[in-house]
Amino acid sequence: MSATIDVTEILRAGVEATDAALERLLPAPDAVPSSIHRAIRHSTFAGGKRLRPVLAMEAARTLRRDRALPAGVEDLGAAIEMLHTYSLIHDDLPALDNDDLRRGKPTCHVVFGEAIAILAGDALQTLAYQTLAQLRCPAPATVEIIRLIAEATGTVEGMIGGQVLDLEGEGTRPTAESVDAIHRAKTGALIRVSIVTGGVYAGATPEDVERLTIFGRKAGLAFQIVDDVLDMTQDSAHLGKTAGKDLATDKATWPAVFGIEASRRDAARLIDEAFAALEPYGPAADGLKTVARFLVERTN
Amino acid sequence: MSATIDVTEILRAGVEATDAALERLLPAPDAVPSSIHRAIRHSTFAGGKRLRPVLAMEAARTLRRDRALPAGVEDLGAAIEMLHTYSLIHDDLPALDNDDLRRGKPTCHVVFGEAIAILAGDALQTLAYQTLAQLRCPAPATVEIIRLIAEATGTVEGMIGGQVLDLEGEGTRPTAESVDAIHRAKTGALIRVSIVTGGVYAGATPEDVERLTIFGRKAGLAFQIVDDVLDMTQDSAHLGKTAGKDLATDKATWPAVFGIEASRRDAARLIDEAFAALEPYGPAADGLKTVARFLVERTN
Repeated sequence: MSATIDVTEILRAGVEATDAALERLLPAPDAVPSSIHRAIRHSTFAGGKRLRPVLAMEAARTLRRDRALPAGVEDLGAAIEMLHTYSLIHDDLPALDNDDLRRGKPTCHVVFGEAIAILAGDALQTLAYQTLAQLRCPAPATVEIIRLIAEATGTVEGMIGGQVLDLEGEGTRPTAESVDAIHRAKTGALIRVSIVTGGVYAGATPEDVERLTIFGRKAGLAFQIVDDVLDMTQDSAHLGKTAGKDLATDKATWPAVFGIEASRRDAARLIDEAFAALEPYGPAADGLKTVARFLVERTN
Repeated sequence: MSATIDVTEILRAGVEATDAALERLLPAPDAVPSSIHRAIRHSTFAGGKRLRPVLAMEAARTLRRDRALPAGVEDLGAAIEMLHTYSLIHDDLPALDNDDLRRGKPTCHVVFGEAIAILAGDALQTLAYQTLAQLRCPAPATVEIIRLIAEATGTVEGMIGGQVLDLEGEGTRPTAESVDAIHRAKTGALIRVSIVTGGVYAGATPEDVERLTIFGRKAGLAFQIVDDVLDMTQDSAHLGKTAGKDLATDKATWPAVFGIEASRRDAARLIDEAFAALEPYGPAADGLKTVARFLVERTN
């Protein structure tokens, strides 16, 4: 069965379904007040790969014997992408990372000003919950999805908590513990919950939730390690600086603490452990595994 | 029956129940990462009157023949108060209103810095939805409450939309239409939805929702008009400037456009119209009416 799974096609279809859902769910760019609606669309349609929605969809498929996508699951992916985008808009603000560019495009506050960027981030969070409250799954599953997502994006071991840990750690030498805690919370929690809520949307039992949680936790950490390694090796090529110099910086990344080779081994080990959690699903999990394998083996 | 209703006691009990719920629902001040948890508590426990929770509770009572509070409704009020607080923290930021003080206390960004203030506002919005997803009412009612609240705090005729209209209107002469649109969205929508969701929590029928929506829309506008009149007359006393000077400013307020006397008449007329919508409930609505009457007749 896995021979028939084309990861490029899964990723392309995921982008297409998510972008169509976002186009339908976000207010029109000329809806009053238009400045914020243009700002929301500027940042939401900035060339994201929609990896979280793809993971949610493949997790949903894993629980279906026929691997069919449950109707409307793309709205769950769109809501998760709104949350991801809100966190990027606020992260880029002058008071936080002060980034003028993201994926080569000017950031939200550069184009629309700080006030609108703050409110556009706020509004994307609000729109995410409005979207979740209109999901086409039974009400108890919807409530569970909302609870899980709020928890994963909150301050206690969630996305915002990770941002705060990252801010607090600036200028201090990262340790294995601090890098792990930041990764788990800042990026890991939203990836994990994308996978788990995809399962809940498809009718997961408590055992399914437990397996998807283990898979999501380990795979999410592996993705982040690979991201950090790519950042570092791409930086080396781009800036002409050596890996040794990167290791000497205070950036809270996995390879900065453990080195590049150990990081690659850790990512490979984590993905093997993650796959073990999907054993009971047999070939139904092939899509999810294929996407995960692609993400840890990519070279850019 | 109305002779037995003591508004001071209703307000006091509302503050007590809401504050106890917030104390239980917000992470402890020393929970990691502590800076954001201290920031959240600084702004949440800053002496608010908890009017929105009180309105939610009294609306819930209106639908109960015995006027008993449904168990756990204070968590709905706490979630609404988290949303109100998040909007105040972000409104006070340097990029928005740039306020250093609120109710005589230093604002969140003054004490904790802009980065933490932005994230504390974000986190209060997240915590509000986490709280809503754990309400003790049937799942379909919970989903409906979340949908209504997200809509009322969003960009299209909701709270964030009102903030954007207010920003866009700065420096231009307010008109009757612009003041009305800003009021309805910026403050009116959250007050209205507090009342409506209090009803939904108590098991409202579609007819109940319609009546509470009419009541909430009219009463909310009346409260805002009275707020504006008090701001203006208190400003006059405090700053020694005349009402005529206030009328000449470009502040988007009801009395600035219509004058103080007409504003007072409008508020009284709106409250009468609001009460008419509660006619079918007879004395069960006395608590809600008593609180509304108190809010439009208060002098500070």
